[in-house]
Amino acid sequence: MTVPNSGKTAVVALGGNAITVPGQEDTIANQFANTRKSLDGIIDLVRDGYNLVITHGNGPQVGNKLLRIESARGRAPILPLGVLVADTEGGMGYMIEQSLHNRLKEEKIDRPVVTIITQMLVNKDDPAIDNPTKYVGQFYDEEEATTFTETRGWKMKKDSNRGWRRVVPSPKPICAIEAKTINQLVNSGTIVIAAGGGGIPVFENENGLLDGIDAVIDKDYASAVLGAEIGAELLCILTSVDKVSLNFGKENQQDLDECTSSQMREYLEAGHFPYGSMGPKVSAALKFIEAGGKVVTISNLADAQKAMAGEAGTRIVAG
Amino acid sequence: MTVPNSGKTAVVALGGNAITVPGQEDTIANQFANTRKSLDGIIDLVRDGYNLVITHGNGPQVGNKLLRIESARGRAPILPLGVLVADTEGGMGYMIEQSLHNRLKEEKIDRPVVTIITQMLVNKDDPAIDNPTKYVGQFYDEEEATTFTETRGWKMKKDSNRGWRRVVPSPKPICAIEAKTINQLVNSGTIVIAAGGGGIPVFENENGLLDGIDAVIDKDYASAVLGAEIGAELLCILTSVDKVSLNFGKENQQDLDECTSSQMREYLEAGHFPYGSMGPKVSAALKFIEAGGKVVTISNLADAQKAMAGEAGTRIVAG
Repeated sequence: MTVPNSGKTAVVALGGNAITVPGQEDTIANQFANTRKSLDGIIDLVRDGYNLVITHGNGPQVGNKLLRIESARGRAPILPLGVLVADTEGGMGYMIEQSLHNRLKEEKIDRPVVTIITQMLVNKDDPAIDNPTKYVGQFYDEEEATTFTETRGWKMKKDSNRGWRRVVPSPKPICAIEAKTINQLVNSGTIVIAAGGGGIPVFENENGLLDGIDAVIDKDYASAVLGAEIGAELLCILTSVDKVSLNFGKENQQDLDECTSSQMREYLEAGHFPYGSMGPKVSAALKFIEAGGKVVTISNLADAQKAMAGEAGTRIVAG
Repeated sequence: MTVPNSGKTAVVALGGNAITVPGQEDTIANQFANTRKSLDGIIDLVRDGYNLVITHGNGPQVGNKLLRIESARGRAPILPLGVLVADTEGGMGYMIEQSLHNRLKEEKIDRPVVTIITQMLVNKDDPAIDNPTKYVGQFYDEEEATTFTETRGWKMKKDSNRGWRRVVPSPKPICAIEAKTINQLVNSGTIVIAAGGGGIPVFENENGLLDGIDAVIDKDYASAVLGAEIGAELLCILTSVDKVSLNFGKENQQDLDECTSSQMREYLEAGHFPYGSMGPKVSAALKFIEAGGKVVTISNLADAQKAMAGEAGTRIVAG
């Protein structure tokens, strides 16, 4: 079956829980099974004739890679964060691509699926670079933390009461280096998996050449930037909460069903969505709409289909 | 500068030594530096107006990943070989892509470069699957080897006098699942990095769905198959030997400058190129020409430019 191409493009951002489910044993068999389950909403968009980009998180996968690297330190080379992100774009892209290829085949839908390794350009003068905030890797005690700051140049920060962890910057992405190719493929009906883990952070040096930087990019924000670049009108952020809420966790908590972008901007500026909870997702949603997108849904992964139909999650519309 | 598109397509297969140089300390900085050096021949092909696919090996990188996985066994999930190949397609693709992007910028040539994660279809009844021959991972002693056969289902084989290693099959690739997209991009002038490490081996199950298999694919043979699929006329195999030779290592060794494919087929069948030396490269070259390709060069990486001009290496021509 050839599904008509409506010319509309959607970006679906799969949260970390689409692939690695907290509390479940983290095996590749489980990761494949979870990935297959996460595709229901995506298939609905395909049936509706959307062109599609799929992005995904990579937190647990990069954490595991860092643990393996430390376990083999001195016997196998140390890989910088950018190469680890690129690795997960390959390995997780493969899992999502093969799972979706099979599902499309079962549904008798003829659409190619490919994975494009994606570099995201950041500004080397982004103030976030001097203010690392994202925890990566294992917990260490204070003595180890001090040693690693001296010997490895790591910035270390206390993470709750469990110990010290390395922190890296999370600069804002400006554009995807591969946007032109992604756009070309998406417009010809190919489903493209891109910007996995937020993309590989790169900056332009004084000669205009690209270079990697030890940082991580927020995957929802990267999805918003990439979506705007390719003229997408819909961004679906799939996560582990049901809705965006005001006064979250308080007596007067109010779940949002639908909201204009200008109203959401006011809520964000009033401090309703702290960093570490919904803040980055709401910022990403507003970025997407302010750059030309029309609708963002933020919903539980399990509600993906309903959210796209406006029956679950929170819907943010331009206005 | 926009280089005229001649409509001719070449596949360049970078050998393992293009990125990891034996004897040199294996750091990512060195891998990037080696990658940059390996691009001279590729830039010449771009100047000549060729459309380009670049493939690459991943032996040392997969070896390091297996070592890290074993070092963290019990604390981080075990990844199957197919996912490891996909990881290296991402990480090494990123390195090659960024290095080439920068080199093109320096040369003022305007051509996009992207990396496509590539699955290669194999036949699940390929006789190679029951006869594993490719060593992967570390050396173990005989007792460990016996244990791993029992507990992990690994097939183990003695590798020279250094100990026992795991062996996996190396089935013949039939086609690239992403060939249509690769062809579309290549024909529009995009330089595509694909089929890294020979591609991720997949087979079709009884329902026609794709599934991974614990195997590795010869990257030169994969390059030949992919090249034929996209109508390439030139395949450049870059390795660590100067030329293909008859009676290699003997008193009457004869280096080959140019040879027809039918003559080379006779040499191959006469046993001049054993498995483990030039055999697989010559087989890949003949596969490419017999499927419609015109010319294959096999040369030292350092001689890439000369080989393409017919001044170094061995040139195999259809005939």
